[in-house]
Amino acid sequence: MDLEARAHSEHPEALRLWLRLLTCAQLIEKQVRGGLREQFDTTLPRFDLMAQLERAEGGMKMNELSRRMMVTGGNVTGITDQLVAEGLVERLEVAGDRRAFLVRLTPKGRKQFQDMAQQHEGWIVGAFAGLSTKDLATLHRLLGKVKEHVSSDFLETT
Amino acid sequence: MDLEARAHSEHPEALRLWLRLLTCAQLIEKQVRGGLREQFDTTLPRFDLMAQLERAEGGMKMNELSRRMMVTGGNVTGITDQLVAEGLVERLEVAGDRRAFLVRLTPKGRKQFQDMAQQHEGWIVGAFAGLSTKDLATLHRLLGKVKEHVSSDFLETT
Repeated sequence: MDLEARAHSEHPEALRLWLRLLTCAQLIEKQVRGGLREQFDTTLPRFDLMAQLERAEGGMKMNELSRRMMVTGGNVTGITDQLVAEGLVERLEVAGDRRAFLVRLTPKGRKQFQDMAQQHEGWIVGAFAGLSTKDLATLHRLLGKVKEHVSSDFLETT
Repeated sequence: MDLEARAHSEHPEALRLWLRLLTCAQLIEKQVRGGLREQFDTTLPRFDLMAQLERAEGGMKMNELSRRMMVTGGNVTGITDQLVAEGLVERLEVAGDRRAFLVRLTPKGRKQFQDMAQQHEGWIVGAFAGLSTKDLATLHRLLGKVKEHVSSDFLETT
């Protein structure tokens, strides 16, 4: 089905643009999810969680990890438990706080993440391969305007 | 959190563009879901289902409706039951096929959908209000290139 065929209104250009934006995001996300599943037998929330940890060499507290994972909405505790069981992630006690702990990638987890990240980058580069360097920069700039406007609008109205 | 802060790689421009695209789609979708909930006490899958029916004056078969709803992934049968119970949608028998039936908006459902669609359009127009008419056209054109490339790439590899 083509989402864009839906648009009919007083402002069809805005609706068509929205549906095209949504379609692009969904198509790329579908490719990424499919690739992670087929090549690494893993999911986007698992990949995202590992991506967060990869950037925190000393580890990350669970509440910080949960906050950063809000976007993909995975079950952070459940995914962490799985990754710990698979030896990809480890829990560390926090000195001076007996109730808190840090989570970080094991060397095995870091290695596996790097393999996935390299493939992931290839999928994303491929998704935009129909655009010239100039097109990429223009698209980035225009989406920046959208993001800025929606963010400020959203903050005002919520 | 800012998704784009995540990008670091050999091709940071492609990853940054992807995360910006995803961020824009998520921000707008969040506004739409919030608006539907607050102003109409309804959900995006319900809105989408009614939008499909609004375009089929004679009604639509359930399997066609399910196919078209794949994007937002709602439970078509459950949502239809709800909307029937609320008098917004009705089921019709199909002449010559005792097992099939059509679903269509009632006049009350059509009226309610039109109110929602008008608001929805306002939110979408608002989301892109930071862009000039020329920017809108450029963004639509560039996303068209992305869509075309990803679609053909996706068909080749799946």
